[in-house]
Amino acid sequence: MIAEFSIVPITGEESLSKYVAILIKEVESSGLKYQLTPMGTIIEGETDRVFELIKKCHNLMKQHANRVLTRISIDDRGNELNRMDKKVKSVLEKLDE
Amino acid sequence: MIAEFSIVPITGEESLSKYVAILIKEVESSGLKYQLTPMGTIIEGETDRVFELIKKCHNLMKQHANRVLTRISIDDRGNELNRMDKKVKSVLEKLDE
Amino acid sequence: MIAEFSIVPITGEESLSKYVAILIKEVESSGLKYQLTPMGTIIEGETDRVFELIKKCHNLMKQHANRVLTRISIDDRGNELNRMDKKVKSVLEKLDE
Amino acid sequence: MIAEFSIVPITGEESLSKYVAILIKEVESSGLKYQLTPMGTIIEGETDRVFELIKKCHNLMKQHANRVLTRISIDDRGNELNRMDKKVKSVLEKLDE
Repeated sequence: MIAEFSIVPITGEESLSKYVAILIKEVESSGLKYQLTPMGTIIEGETDRVFELIKKCHNLMKQHANRVLTRISIDDRGNELNRMDKKVKSVLEKLDE
Repeated sequence: MIAEFSIVPITGEESLSKYVAILIKEVESSGLKYQLTPMGTIIEGETDRVFELIKKCHNLMKQHANRVLTRISIDDRGNELNRMDKKVKSVLEKLDE
Repeated sequence: MIAEFSIVPITGEESLSKYVAILIKEVESSGLKYQLTPMGTIIEGETDRVFELIKKCHNLMKQHANRVLTRISIDDRGNELNRMDKKVKSVLEKLDE
Repeated sequence: MIAEFSIVPITGEESLSKYVAILIKEVESSGLKYQLTPMGTIIEGETDRVFELIKKCHNLMKQHANRVLTRISIDDRGNELNRMDKKVKSVLEKLDE
């Protein structure tokens, strides 16, 4: 599956980039394929590993703030691999038609 | 934590209520406190149990469609209990002020 | 259409209920049907009015914080009226079967 | 503001790329800066123009399906320009530290 997530610790700091950096290190150590966007982090992998990683990231942010808001969107389509690349490529091809 | 989720199996059917009914039965059997809204299902419980239940519901919908879209929003605030009720009550009190 | 929205001003305050109360007053003055849930506010109305109200609420929160995070989910299904009630009722009926 | 949106017309078709291509053409004709990701489209612009564009895209999909599900996430932070690039850059810099 492909999943995008965004985790916001309510710390009072307006800039959240240092927290995103902590999360990206966690995502990298998971070995899952990922992409950082201006609105969140997109990961790709087996269902169990994706849920496990997002839960781990959420718990990590709980160490930095008493209140944490997390938003997850999942697109799960069969057993296809390399979906992250294919999805964008498939749209671009149709734009060329 | 409190979490709201919405799971959409892409089956071609416009009405999704029968699938929501399947999910609600799963939610009820979990024993977690929940509320069905016009836009999703809100559950409350420990982090592990909440993630486990949503993953189970997601996998359940994968039995009905090859493509499943899931959306989750989490509000995790310390160890407070009965947050679902308290959150709405807290707003209503301020409206009366 | 039915739309759920949640608007978080990043002020450093952990409790957001006073801001939700401000939003609810705005929603009430719009005359649109609404429901406050533990995870957001659900409104129902014509497309233009729904977008207008959410934009107004978002701009209102910008008066309270330099950074504002807003999350919107829309379910737009033809011209049916009273969908908010019907959607939940339709699931409950299927649970009884 | 920066906003990410994803619009799903419930047509019964499992592949949605042709609909995303239609939306991207609309986004391009708006002149707003945008980025297509595997999970949605991210746009950047003034509040009014962002809401207007997303509403237009939503209405466009209503021509292809009776039921349309739309998800929007907004990050609105002051008057900064070029936020889309800066947000990712700011995280990458912290990863290097």
